Amino acid sequence: MVVKVYGPLCASTKRVLLVLIEKGIEFETVNVDVSKGEHRQPEFLKLQPFGVVPVIQDGDYTLYESRAIMRYYAEKYNSQGVDLLGKTIEERGMVEQWLEVEAQNFHSHAYNLAIHILFAPIFGITPDPKVIEESEAKLDRVLTIYEERLSQSKYLAGDFFSLADMSHIPFIDYIVNNTGKKHLINKRKHVSGWWDDISNRASWKKVLELYRAPI
Amino acid sequence: MVVKVYGPLCASTKRVLLVLIEKGIEFETVNVDVSKGEHRQPEFLKLQPFGVVPVIQDGDYTLYESRAIMRYYAEKYNSQGVDLLGKTIEERGMVEQWLEVEAQNFHSHAYNLAIHILFAPIFGITPDPKVIEESEAKLDRVLTIYEERLSQSKYLAGDFFSLADMSHIPFIDYIVNNTGKKHLINKRKHVSGWWDDISNRASWKKVLELYRAPI
Repeated sequence: MVVKVYGPLCASTKRVLLVLIEKGIEFETVNVDVSKGEHRQPEFLKLQPFGVVPVIQDGDYTLYESRAIMRYYAEKYNSQGVDLLGKTIEERGMVEQWLEVEAQNFHSHAYNLAIHILFAPIFGITPDPKVIEESEAKLDRVLTIYEERLSQSKYLAGDFFSLADMSHIPFIDYIVNNTGKKHLINKRKHVSGWWDDISNRASWKKVLELYRAPI
Repeated sequence: MVVKVYGPLCASTKRVLLVLIEKGIEFETVNVDVSKGEHRQPEFLKLQPFGVVPVIQDGDYTLYESRAIMRYYAEKYNSQGVDLLGKTIEERGMVEQWLEVEAQNFHSHAYNLAIHILFAPIFGITPDPKVIEESEAKLDRVLTIYEERLSQSKYLAGDFFSLADMSHIPFIDYIVNNTGKKHLINKRKHVSGWWDDISNRASWKKVLELYRAPI
């Protein structure tokens, strides 16, 4: 059964694509043009009532929320492809901790920078310089903690690549390559080394090759 | 080894306490007075560099982020006490989906209501009527989707109680009992039935008996 992935051009969906590629799971994609509001159409809301991508359909199983889908495939295909959850319950705990840090401490600031610098024209939003300034300052503080963490271990959850690292890739890519804020990464020795490592994975190169957003 | 839980009076920590009690895991608590800024003191930042509760220490294993700790204990003691993750990988996927919905769609609005209505005086914040109005409107829309979901299944992830339901309890308790917004729950047949069910669990009664916040 080929997994159907909705909204491949969106950053959050790219988290899911990374897992599918790392695990060698066959998939096909269905475009959802959020600039045209297709994520708010009745047909899409039947799949995802909150009106956001991604959603996957795998036979008659439908699942949404990018980090939930990542966990689902990492667990379902635990012994296939790259291990993304750690080998012990304690390692999995650290993966979960840093996945939550990404979701709770990193994401909203990175998202604000992407929306207000990069996507404002596309979505007809007026960029707010105060939001940009505050988000950059908050992200800077978060990345100071990442620098300390990554001076102790090669990856966020320990000395193994995991969902926790992977979950950061799509939005750090915007920060480094599309928002003029790459100094946030580059000025930090361990964070920039980590970014060089994870952004050079074949899976991310394939995602960009196939599903680069039209920006 | 007795689990040490930091910050038991805070709502997010109560997610962790619920799991420990449901699983019958022995624990002790360490107060962290956030109204006095104890979560920003160097000693605490060594445990949790982002300066938020909860944190647990379990022997020499330290873990933070409430939903990560919930998953860790639910998995580690999978066959002890109440099953909180579902019985299959597909059920676990639905638990993860609704845990993410709680974190991404529900929490920030419920948190804003609690902060601006309930905790503003304690933390010296000026309540913002616009934030309160917008948060209530957004929460109302989210709960409309919950009502639809709970008309199809007894609990969020399916016909079984799970971490996804549990994760909502501390903040819905504020909404119903401390913010004057209980109509958001009570006007909905299935959401209010669900709330009656999950808030009457012995675990939640014990949490309130032992660690009710001084508000």
